[in-house]
Amino acid sequence: MPLRSRLCLELPDWIEAHLPAGPLPDVEQRMKLVLELAAGNIDHETGGPFAAAVFDSAHRLVAAGVNLVTRSRCSSAHAEIVALSLAEQACNDYRLPRGHELVISAEPCAMCLGAIPWSGVDGIVTSATDADIRAIGFDEGSKPENWAAALERRGIRVRRNLLRQQGRAVLERYRARGGEIYNGHALSDGG
Amino acid sequence: MPLRSRLCLELPDWIEAHLPAGPLPDVEQRMKLVLELAAGNIDHETGGPFAAAVFDSAHRLVAAGVNLVTRSRCSSAHAEIVALSLAEQACNDYRLPRGHELVISAEPCAMCLGAIPWSGVDGIVTSATDADIRAIGFDEGSKPENWAAALERRGIRVRRNLLRQQGRAVLERYRARGGEIYNGHALSDGG
Repeated sequence: MPLRSRLCLELPDWIEAHLPAGPLPDVEQRMKLVLELAAGNIDHETGGPFAAAVFDSAHRLVAAGVNLVTRSRCSSAHAEIVALSLAEQACNDYRLPRGHELVISAEPCAMCLGAIPWSGVDGIVTSATDADIRAIGFDEGSKPENWAAALERRGIRVRRNLLRQQGRAVLERYRARGGEIYNGHALSDGG
Repeated sequence: MPLRSRLCLELPDWIEAHLPAGPLPDVEQRMKLVLELAAGNIDHETGGPFAAAVFDSAHRLVAAGVNLVTRSRCSSAHAEIVALSLAEQACNDYRLPRGHELVISAEPCAMCLGAIPWSGVDGIVTSATDADIRAIGFDEGSKPENWAAALERRGIRVRRNLLRQQGRAVLERYRARGGEIYNGHALSDGG
């Protein structure tokens, strides 16, 4: 009974043209790059309207990720999981070195929220909110109340709502284009 | 600036020898297989003491997963994520068909808990408990209170504590052998 034993996820080629030549010292620059990748994922029809990137303590890009759920037939291939995993493999360690930061186009779902402490990142920065994501039809899962405070208690800095209008506009563009909503068991499925 | 664009995770070869020839109609058989894989991951030193498997509605094995965090330098390569992703790719859909079940050697961490609804599985079965996992030093993250009830509200059946003694014994064997504890930002890291 031969079972599948190899899982491969690959970023789309169009990303390469967006990668910065050097460090991005300003956090708004870093978020702009991430929002550009999220918009690119819509325009190129390579997945959901989400992107993420990991930067080191010198603000150099270590890894980028976009949502690959539909393209890769893989429900866990969220931008954050992709970016964190690629960053860890680039650093050759399952725990990122000190001072790494995860920049995300929208607040993390329950899965990605749980992935953040495992990765060793020291801070996260988000743009669109959980409510913005739910407004276009995605189910973000059951998150603990005050999830940001829970991350802070673990020593992970949280900065929210950076360029939120632009972040929300990316999500709205996905909805306007009729982008696929790939929920699994959303709350409405239950009793 | 060439960035890593490909993420590949691969199950260790030793798993193949454990795969069943046909369906496993009894849930205890299914859990025994999963606990055998978790124990195998310790004996072969291929990762943390955790395994998972996805079965279809006829109780045929669709995909197996073991923890690959240390081996793959990837903090999200938990057994559940690996098994669900491989199952989805085997079914060629990011949402598993109706009637699929995830059997896990121990209760899910916050990340894997969040991954379960996205996958479309209709039920989960677990052995060792969250407390058993924490007792050997792993940080399971911030989970919502009554996480099992939250899954049930989404239409996902939850059966816990199946063969728990055996499940706990696997974890204790890992600790006794001095297995690596790969926490990222655990609670003790915070203020």
